[in-house]
Amino acid sequence: MAHHILYTARGTCALATHIALLEAGAEFELRPLDFNSAEQRSPAYLALNPKGRVPALVTPQGVLTETPALLLYVAQTHPAAGLAPLDDAFLLARMQELQSYIASTVHVAHAHKHRGARWADDPAAQDCMRAKVTQNMTDCAVLLEAWLEPGPWVLGERYCVADAYLYVAAGWMDGDGVDMQRFPQLRAHQARVMARQSTQVALAQLG
Amino acid sequence: MAHHILYTARGTCALATHIALLEAGAEFELRPLDFNSAEQRSPAYLALNPKGRVPALVTPQGVLTETPALLLYVAQTHPAAGLAPLDDAFLLARMQELQSYIASTVHVAHAHKHRGARWADDPAAQDCMRAKVTQNMTDCAVLLEAWLEPGPWVLGERYCVADAYLYVAAGWMDGDGVDMQRFPQLRAHQARVMARQSTQVALAQLG
Repeated sequence: MAHHILYTARGTCALATHIALLEAGAEFELRPLDFNSAEQRSPAYLALNPKGRVPALVTPQGVLTETPALLLYVAQTHPAAGLAPLDDAFLLARMQELQSYIASTVHVAHAHKHRGARWADDPAAQDCMRAKVTQNMTDCAVLLEAWLEPGPWVLGERYCVADAYLYVAAGWMDGDGVDMQRFPQLRAHQARVMARQSTQVALAQLG
Repeated sequence: MAHHILYTARGTCALATHIALLEAGAEFELRPLDFNSAEQRSPAYLALNPKGRVPALVTPQGVLTETPALLLYVAQTHPAAGLAPLDDAFLLARMQELQSYIASTVHVAHAHKHRGARWADDPAAQDCMRAKVTQNMTDCAVLLEAWLEPGPWVLGERYCVADAYLYVAAGWMDGDGVDMQRFPQLRAHQARVMARQSTQVALAQLG
């Protein structure tokens, strides 16, 4: 897996793909963008990824974006790492179901805190969105807590790329005002993913 | 593929999974819910799908939700139908990239028109979100128009399940105020999907 470059930034969902690449033992180059100087909106980066977001993965065949797609790609290109149930259509659908839910519901709920300008111009409307973030993220936590029964991983006995993605999304919850004491499964899952070497290395590489 | 039941409703993204099941030649039972009487919030349905939304697909192994996951599942369980590039990791990632974008960006942008209550309680804030829908959906159309070059399908020469999903999402745009005259590729793609027998049958079955 030479010539792969991951564009990432601290505090973003790109961490999930970063962890997955490390779990896979992939060779890749890491390119952190500085969101404080809006580097993701620079002409050079927009030429590479017109969405102006991370993650973006440069592959020999072209640029890929969207976390659920990247995580499947990493798992499929490194089958020996066993990072997804590639040959079990139902389990793979469960994995993609969770990933799609995180992308389209959890991440979106979280984004209404600081990225409300995407959906409304009026600052008062953005404040109103912000006021609902704790409730919406708590609703997500309820669903995810149930998902993790019995655990220990999101698909049961075996770790998969979606565990890294859940780790990242659940990591937003405390800051979003969710009372994590209510969600012991989620907290235990966080600790399990955090304890893995891939997670530790990824966090250290981001600095 | 016996014992599969698709829960759907008119005017929802569940149409994409419905079309995919028909393209696959799958045996399934269709259960349309009446959103006007909030049937998706009935205790019976919530017991089956706590998200209270469609699509939900009952399979012999359990219930699956989230369109990008369901479309991959239908393609993977019917390989002879050739509905996804299952053995090409890059192309499959491109397909999931588009599906994830539709779910987490296009559908979310559209939902701020009638479902703003998900993200803000104040009706004035919901009005403010509604005012931005045309602009956000137009931005999506720009990206999707470029994606369709050169076409004719989203992955090039070969139709895949994501074509049905794009058809459904692009079908919201005119009603959301997007000037479709600006997007000839999208309009041509709409016509191509609409002309397929699977699409015609699905629309007829929904009544």
